[in-house]
Amino acid sequence: MALKENSPIGVFDSGIGGITVLRELAARFPKENFIYLGDTARLPYGTKSPETIRKYGEQNLNFLIEKGVKAVAIACNSASTQIPEDSYRNIPVFNVIRPGAQMALQVSIDQRIGILGTRATVLSEAYQKAILRQAPNAFVIAEAAPLLVPLAEEGWIDDPVTNLIAYRYVQRLLQSRIDTLILGCTHYPLLKNSLLRAVGSSVTLVDSGAALAVHMSDFVAKNPNAGKHDKIQFYTTDASSNTEKLVKALMPNKEFDFLLADLC
Amino acid sequence: MALKENSPIGVFDSGIGGITVLRELAARFPKENFIYLGDTARLPYGTKSPETIRKYGEQNLNFLIEKGVKAVAIACNSASTQIPEDSYRNIPVFNVIRPGAQMALQVSIDQRIGILGTRATVLSEAYQKAILRQAPNAFVIAEAAPLLVPLAEEGWIDDPVTNLIAYRYVQRLLQSRIDTLILGCTHYPLLKNSLLRAVGSSVTLVDSGAALAVHMSDFVAKNPNAGKHDKIQFYTTDASSNTEKLVKALMPNKEFDFLLADLC
Repeated sequence: MALKENSPIGVFDSGIGGITVLRELAARFPKENFIYLGDTARLPYGTKSPETIRKYGEQNLNFLIEKGVKAVAIACNSASTQIPEDSYRNIPVFNVIRPGAQMALQVSIDQRIGILGTRATVLSEAYQKAILRQAPNAFVIAEAAPLLVPLAEEGWIDDPVTNLIAYRYVQRLLQSRIDTLILGCTHYPLLKNSLLRAVGSSVTLVDSGAALAVHMSDFVAKNPNAGKHDKIQFYTTDASSNTEKLVKALMPNKEFDFLLADLC
Repeated sequence: MALKENSPIGVFDSGIGGITVLRELAARFPKENFIYLGDTARLPYGTKSPETIRKYGEQNLNFLIEKGVKAVAIACNSASTQIPEDSYRNIPVFNVIRPGAQMALQVSIDQRIGILGTRATVLSEAYQKAILRQAPNAFVIAEAAPLLVPLAEEGWIDDPVTNLIAYRYVQRLLQSRIDTLILGCTHYPLLKNSLLRAVGSSVTLVDSGAALAVHMSDFVAKNPNAGKHDKIQFYTTDASSNTEKLVKALMPNKEFDFLLADLC
């Protein structure tokens, strides 16, 4: 695909949780165009094998590149662990791992960092390695928190059950006296209040989606939108009556086209 | 595919929860051969649209029919709601809906029946319609319980958090004075203790997988295995290190071949 002067930035996620990343990107780069792909027909990724996550991730990349994007931001942490931050078919690819690791090291005082993620993200050790590459003496500990995604999707936000489960997942991290916690999944910012309550005031939360937006500033400064401003194209692979409502609630000031993608 | 004298019965599920159904079938029909397909690369089905569930279900049917099965038992409740109990490419297809509804009506004294299922199963109203077709004056009420599947997969069996969530999901059903509760998802039998505690002794639980096995007795009597007895072929669409362990723990006396299927 030849790039046009108003080529969009592509964003993909296993579902619509990546809207927390799209929101950060759209707020930071208000003049840019975006195309979003949520693979809702096959979500979640975080419980699946590295091979399957990589296959789905590459199918998503191909879809976006064929739509003419100038870069791809991988919002999904599980997919980020399997697709290197590099380029794919000559299109720059950004993911959440290095930005999240970098921001955690910046805000941590004692270099004691915890990671909360899906099972795939934790087992990949991608965050752990990214942190230790930059700070070999840092202390890093990770915990898989599989129930947080369905709790967020169920909408049990600020719920006593969610507080209880959040507290259980961070127990071991707190015993290791972390001072910083990476929210290693696009859904977790939706449960921020429960997680804040669980970790207490001595731990700083790092949203890796927000870190990704900061990280892409250089690229956008060098490759700005030089054409007209379009609606955000919002693709999902499965039809759901909830998508439009949720997206509009989280990004009320943006205009969208809601579309269906057939990947499988 | 031409049928052979020892053609197996095919069983499919969105994941490996359907092993609770396979176990019932293998216990009731010890001379039969079985081939199982768990679509673990795309699970869960219960949060997805009817169209997507139907598409995946048909791909699973085609896979099993090409392997030469003499019948297919759909273990997955969400898929059962979208694929009629009938025949597909001339192969008889059984699902859990009618057997579950029938057994509930048999055990219920006051004909007040509750259904716990995935969102897709509840919204389809398949159980509700199957019950009312047989007993137009029955009282039927359904509740979607999306968190029970991830709780079972997380292994939080007999856990206080699971008890709390189970109790919340059955609240409204209990207020309607049901005397029977259909476990409308293959995962729920794994949480039987928590559900029993939540509903109390005045409610009878119905396992629709067990009901399906009873329901297939006629078919198996008329079409028995007339050849040799084979290992159970256990296909999944995603590789997981846990599958073998879990399957062997639940069916310790059976022999299996573990294989990978590429559907997507």
